[in-house]
Amino acid sequence: MTQDPQEAVVEEVEPPEEDHLAFSRKDVAAILYSVDVGDREKLVELMEPLHPADIADMLEQINAFDRMRLIKLYDKEFDGEILSELDESIREDVILALHPEVLADAVRELDSDDVVDLIEDLDAAQQSAILEVLEDSDRVAVEQSLTYPEYSAGRLMQREVVMAPEHWNVGEAIDYLRATDDLPEQFYHIVMVDPKLRPVGNVALGRLMASRREILLRSLIEDTFHVIPVTRPEAEVAYAFNQYHLISAPVVDESERLVGVITIDDAMNVLDEEHEEDILRLAGVGEESRLSDNTLETVKQRLPWLAVNLLTAVLASLVIAQFEDVIGAVVALAVLMPIVASMGGNAGTQALTVAVRSLATRDLTSSNVWRIIGRELTVGLVNGVCFAVVMGVLALFWFGSPVLGVVIASAMVINLVVAGLAGIGVPVVLERFGVDPALASGTFVTTVTDVVGFFAFLGLASAVLL
Amino acid sequence: MTQDPQEAVVEEVEPPEEDHLAFSRKDVAAILYSVDVGDREKLVELMEPLHPADIADMLEQINAFDRMRLIKLYDKEFDGEILSELDESIREDVILALHPEVLADAVRELDSDDVVDLIEDLDAAQQSAILEVLEDSDRVAVEQSLTYPEYSAGRLMQREVVMAPEHWNVGEAIDYLRATDDLPEQFYHIVMVDPKLRPVGNVALGRLMASRREILLRSLIEDTFHVIPVTRPEAEVAYAFNQYHLISAPVVDESERLVGVITIDDAMNVLDEEHEEDILRLAGVGEESRLSDNTLETVKQRLPWLAVNLLTAVLASLVIAQFEDVIGAVVALAVLMPIVASMGGNAGTQALTVAVRSLATRDLTSSNVWRIIGRELTVGLVNGVCFAVVMGVLALFWFGSPVLGVVIASAMVINLVVAGLAGIGVPVVLERFGVDPALASGTFVTTVTDVVGFFAFLGLASAVLL
Repeated sequence: MTQDPQEAVVEEVEPPEEDHLAFSRKDVAAILYSVDVGDREKLVELMEPLHPADIADMLEQINAFDRMRLIKLYDKEFDGEILSELDESIREDVILALHPEVLADAVRELDSDDVVDLIEDLDAAQQSAILEVLEDSDRVAVEQSLTYPEYSAGRLMQREVVMAPEHWNVGEAIDYLRATDDLPEQFYHIVMVDPKLRPVGNVALGRLMASRREILLRSLIEDTFHVIPVTRPEAEVAYAFNQYHLISAPVVDESERLVGVITIDDAMNVLDEEHEEDILRLAGVGEESRLSDNTLETVKQRLPWLAVNLLTAVLASLVIAQFEDVIGAVVALAVLMPIVASMGGNAGTQALTVAVRSLATRDLTSSNVWRIIGRELTVGLVNGVCFAVVMGVLALFWFGSPVLGVVIASAMVINLVVAGLAGIGVPVVLERFGVDPALASGTFVTTVTDVVGFFAFLGLASAVLL
Repeated sequence: MTQDPQEAVVEEVEPPEEDHLAFSRKDVAAILYSVDVGDREKLVELMEPLHPADIADMLEQINAFDRMRLIKLYDKEFDGEILSELDESIREDVILALHPEVLADAVRELDSDDVVDLIEDLDAAQQSAILEVLEDSDRVAVEQSLTYPEYSAGRLMQREVVMAPEHWNVGEAIDYLRATDDLPEQFYHIVMVDPKLRPVGNVALGRLMASRREILLRSLIEDTFHVIPVTRPEAEVAYAFNQYHLISAPVVDESERLVGVITIDDAMNVLDEEHEEDILRLAGVGEESRLSDNTLETVKQRLPWLAVNLLTAVLASLVIAQFEDVIGAVVALAVLMPIVASMGGNAGTQALTVAVRSLATRDLTSSNVWRIIGRELTVGLVNGVCFAVVMGVLALFWFGSPVLGVVIASAMVINLVVAGLAGIGVPVVLERFGVDPALASGTFVTTVTDVVGFFAFLGLASAVLL
């Protein structure tokens, strides 16, 4: 029935199926209580309505001790999908905690692309333990996928593809589909291939259903068709899905032969992970950082970035140290100087974040980079003048010194213009040199604004006030 | 053919279709040249292979003058999909630049959900201009969608749904689909409904194809089935799609009747926008910020956040001002104090970013918040002690003062512990009060670390050194 649902007729009453929402704190408490008292039956009953993704989230949220006890008690109910939803940081521990037979059953349930995702970060011993329990055909598929580079389309794709020769008509395709026993669990398109098995177009199942039997498949192919080389980085795959609204896309090897298919749900997952990396890198946190990491892991991730920050902070202090005389003479400078640096750091971070994000979404390209640099300079100038006036007046009334007002106003303009330039320039240059701009830009930019801020303010002050 | 593609037989040769990759700088230059010389034929030829999403990107990247000339020259080739791919910031200008008839044709090509997305941000006059050119049924659909709250599932869904009563078998469903003229362009599931039109399950088209005619639809429904209330915020819809790997999900009104369906490509788009908002908000840039904004627009977005930052920077300066005496006596304090504040700000931002991201992905919940707070405190303590030792030794050698070394070491420990606490505490508290933690946390946290850093360092110094 495709008519507007509002118009249809009511016949008989039956309640709608419950939708599975995320678990509440109460649920977790009840589950942990059942673990505490060792009530396996109750545990299974409480876990039964939860989606594997939610169970994985819960396992990440409870502590390691409860997690291990829960897994032991849950035992053979443990589902393979929970494993593939788990954060890498605790996946290894969970695999070790599972009874080997439970693990084998859990892994055998998974699609080969999920198994690849599951084992690619495990150590060799765990990898072969899992590979051993797979059926031969699955093991070969997984091993073949593992030969593709990490984070490539080859790791992301599923190898089972529904395809048809391009000369088929709708009737032949439908008859073929209805006669085939081993169609994949999920597929949305038939990939049309030429005789060399090179993909030439996608036909959506819906279009197929809606068309007369004698119509040629080639007349039903979708406008947007995107073929993905097997070595393409997964981040670019996700970009293509998002940009072109793809639902599934064929993957080809170097001779352009079809070797697999990627579906949008996997691409969405990659997009989400890429965002996570960007946001964590911008903040100077290791991109592998997880909430489920323990204290030691967290310290190890954050300490290097703090060490870099310490170096740059010391650099800024060395600038200040050049002006000890004038600070000793006019202590007000020590009071005001952090304002200039802080405003510069903030303005720089603003420009930087927009630039990093625009580079990631490919909105900032060589076609518009000079115009955007011009814009950032102008914005820095305008904001600089605004805050120069405010700070000039503030300094005048606070310390009763017009000269100090002029000094801080000038330093403010200089630093905000530099902040705009550094905010756009640093990520663009890093990207040109093949460095992820999200990774290192923040430190560079705030170093620049600190050094320039202190130097401009204290330098001007010592020129004028000493 | 579902067999492994590697095994299939080669029959005849034909080249694969070109895939449409993003345009290069050269393409843009060639297009702009054709606009310069007014060569319409060449322009159309150059634009023809480009995907509407890429054309929209290009229109965003070139300047306003070139954009208008290009649109005038391209004229009636202008595709509706380009409009729906355009950033809101320039969409209005483009609509104004289009010839009314071209606009009418462009809009009529679009699905009703794309029209909604297109017009929801236009002013009333432009809205009704577009509504007027739609066919009656489309206009009613669009107007009805506009009655749902902005950023709700109701705005996101498409109203055309393929559904079937739950008592049907595969044969009935297939016969029905093949007999129906107006199936939607894209659909991947049949929604099974009870007689009150309440959705009870999804059957994937692939499953339907693979099953015998006499099998009941209800035995084919997917494990994961998620019903979305029409008023649910689109951010939560995107979360559900990503969490549960949904491909499409039925949308219901308050009486639980089916009113539409949301597909994963729209959810992916929302996920992408939500990430953009998070990252821009964290940096104190208006979340509506676009690379295509002009200078004035950009100043207006960034100035308020810089003003907030100025207030907090002045607050920190007021703390410093309390210690003018000790700074005047020991100028080394002015040199070292930014280091303490900077390290605190960085450590706070690290903890904060992980917390904001974890709240967004619902990994940080009431089940684990206390454990994570404990972790952040410990991490702050460990990092604090590490850098306290480094800075203590550095200050000792730099200024030859063991007392100064002890003072900065102590201040470092205090500030990094506070940074950890503020970094996790501020976003959690904001979230409890219903404020987007990405929006305001950064300023709060760095204010805390600046104030505490200066106060601890200078306060200890004046207690010990004066």
